[in-house]
Amino acid sequence: MNQQAELALDLAQRAQDHIDSERLQDAIATLACFGGRKDGGVSRETLSDADLAARRYLVDQARALGCLIETDECANLYFRRPGLTDLPPVLTGSHNDTQPVGGKLDGAYGVVGGLELIAALNDAGIQTQRSIDVVAWTNEEGCRFGPGAMGSSAFVVPARLAAYRESVDSQQITFGSALDAAHAQFPDLGRRPMSSALFAYIELHIEQGPVLERAEVPLGVVTGIQGVRWYRVTCSGMAAHAGTTPMDERADAMVAALGMANQLYAYAASQSVSALRLTLGQWRVSPGSVNTIPGEVVFTIDARCIDDAVLQRFEDELRDVTRSWTWRGHIDFECFFQRSPTAFPDAILDLIEQSCQRASRLAQRAAPLRLSSGAFHDAMYLADHCPSGMIFVPSEKGISHNAAEATAPRDLFLGVQALAYTVTALATGVSL
Amino acid sequence: MNQQAELALDLAQRAQDHIDSERLQDAIATLACFGGRKDGGVSRETLSDADLAARRYLVDQARALGCLIETDECANLYFRRPGLTDLPPVLTGSHNDTQPVGGKLDGAYGVVGGLELIAALNDAGIQTQRSIDVVAWTNEEGCRFGPGAMGSSAFVVPARLAAYRESVDSQQITFGSALDAAHAQFPDLGRRPMSSALFAYIELHIEQGPVLERAEVPLGVVTGIQGVRWYRVTCSGMAAHAGTTPMDERADAMVAALGMANQLYAYAASQSVSALRLTLGQWRVSPGSVNTIPGEVVFTIDARCIDDAVLQRFEDELRDVTRSWTWRGHIDFECFFQRSPTAFPDAILDLIEQSCQRASRLAQRAAPLRLSSGAFHDAMYLADHCPSGMIFVPSEKGISHNAAEATAPRDLFLGVQALAYTVTALATGVSL
Repeated sequence: MNQQAELALDLAQRAQDHIDSERLQDAIATLACFGGRKDGGVSRETLSDADLAARRYLVDQARALGCLIETDECANLYFRRPGLTDLPPVLTGSHNDTQPVGGKLDGAYGVVGGLELIAALNDAGIQTQRSIDVVAWTNEEGCRFGPGAMGSSAFVVPARLAAYRESVDSQQITFGSALDAAHAQFPDLGRRPMSSALFAYIELHIEQGPVLERAEVPLGVVTGIQGVRWYRVTCSGMAAHAGTTPMDERADAMVAALGMANQLYAYAASQSVSALRLTLGQWRVSPGSVNTIPGEVVFTIDARCIDDAVLQRFEDELRDVTRSWTWRGHIDFECFFQRSPTAFPDAILDLIEQSCQRASRLAQRAAPLRLSSGAFHDAMYLADHCPSGMIFVPSEKGISHNAAEATAPRDLFLGVQALAYTVTALATGVSL
Repeated sequence: MNQQAELALDLAQRAQDHIDSERLQDAIATLACFGGRKDGGVSRETLSDADLAARRYLVDQARALGCLIETDECANLYFRRPGLTDLPPVLTGSHNDTQPVGGKLDGAYGVVGGLELIAALNDAGIQTQRSIDVVAWTNEEGCRFGPGAMGSSAFVVPARLAAYRESVDSQQITFGSALDAAHAQFPDLGRRPMSSALFAYIELHIEQGPVLERAEVPLGVVTGIQGVRWYRVTCSGMAAHAGTTPMDERADAMVAALGMANQLYAYAASQSVSALRLTLGQWRVSPGSVNTIPGEVVFTIDARCIDDAVLQRFEDELRDVTRSWTWRGHIDFECFFQRSPTAFPDAILDLIEQSCQRASRLAQRAAPLRLSSGAFHDAMYLADHCPSGMIFVPSEKGISHNAAEATAPRDLFLGVQALAYTVTALATGVSL
């Protein structure tokens, strides 16, 4: 290890040791007041009044920490702790918006954790070579305006923004006009160009699944993000009277759909070693009458895996099942969304693992686990732009997108400790 | 055979031979004009303006045939061709209403066929011992006001009418007020008491299924009406993120519902010799999102069979499957409608078979087939009141409740011939 890297890791340890758990808990609780619900959840859809008020709070906090504050065309917010050089900065953060009924942590934890890291650096009197930027991405959830992760996606490929601006919410408000209104609320902020150079992006997030909790491990090194393919399957038979039509005369679309679906579930079970995940979430059974044989059934398939080859083999199986199904009707399917798996680079994984190991060891907790993310995150898009990585902390019972979303304070503390180590090391001389 | 019965069969043959196919076709076409649609279908929901206009047409036709016309508390219409005695009459007919989009034949055929029978008796100059009444039952379809078969059901058990009068349509009009308005349109008609004595009830109807067409047989002797049980099955699991939740951590309600449903279909297939019919027609999958594991699935089961013991064994199987299903959620079911099978008496079946055999033989067509009815009919309720029976003619491709509903004119002709024989025999001295 060269002297620069040794110094970087020394500073990383000092930053990690200056994280303040109580201040972190206060900040999480305060941010949760914006859109806070009586049931403990948070309703803060993107660019809503609650979101804009939360942004104002974050801007004030960052200003108090001495940050330079900027925004961009997609209303992403950047809080900069300047470095000694103008080398490309290290970016951390997450998103500020929630599902219609979400929790206190999904997204918010990564943003607040980034500000806590800046406070710790201030306390420790650490100067970094590179600037450290904390970002709050716009519209990660995609529930008010689809698709999700607009802010990070448009940052990486600015040409996407034009189409996003046309997206409308249930009140027929366009994303573009909501963006313009948000910008008008923060007229004094400088505009940063989209797609600016970054040295690395590190996102801290709750797992939103049960893997870490089940393993009793407080920190997860996220190796990548599962790929996904969404299919729509249409079984077209013939609606007929439930009483008068003999079983062997039927073209019952539900019988075909159920048989197919069971075959697909059986295939997924046979692939359990490759961790193929299969969800048949949306069903439309027509005409939907108790005493009429279903004439048409349309259902969706969400297939996910960290290995794209497994998804391709699933698609081959789906094609085979569809073609070989023998009945009086016919079956079609189409893929209507597809995203290949994301793999984070080894250098980032190793650094995150090192930071998690130190934080866990000092807390006398289990060593970190490597796992993939089942959910999409802004880091998925950033990975197309710069070396990126993610740190996970456990979600109690794996629950997320729910008021009951929770993580133990001691785990939240370790997560920010790991983030502080990783980001400080990257900003002070660790090479990639 | 005694002399009376011999005479009765002689008159029955004469009545059968006086049926006029052209007059029948004209009457079917004319009645279909009331609520007639450009696509060839008929929209004549019960007690609608179209239905009331059709009733006026039928009253005029019956009056021209010399009939005595009466109604009752449920606006059922009766057209009487008086007999020589005041013995309980023989009743035939069906219903005058259609589905929102129905065909020309469902119900209408039985009413028009009854009037054609009276015209034939007039032409043949036949006097019957018993009066012959043709009925047009109110609201058999049950689509505007639920349940169906109100007219026949209330005729048999008049106490049911009070509850029926409270039934409302989509415009919040009660069945009671629609009845009152209908009565006001026919102020000169006498009121017949409900539940009056009948010697027999014979209903002529299209099959609404594919059995006769498949067998290339023009006439069916209906042995009875299938029993039905309707169940609602609720699978309660846990909604969760499709991406983050490992397969072995899920309580996927759709996996449970599909697995159960496939087991029930397999059971039905194993019971094919008993002709158990199974339809899973209504599905509600919550929350119904592509990327969320279904937390709750509710589906309905329509189970039908001519043998109540088979239905009971199915219910036992359903209970077993429900109880023995092993997963992280739970499954409940309830029976929300039940009607035992109806068996028509042998004496009626034999007489109908005789009438069908003669009509088929003279037309050089295949001998009649005995079959059960999968659909409900007014005869199902009448069977609780007097010896009842039904005659079926084929439905092209088994299609009904559809503008495409059709039956070959030569089959419609044979059906009314069989009806004429049966009813005349019953009205002139055949004993039961």
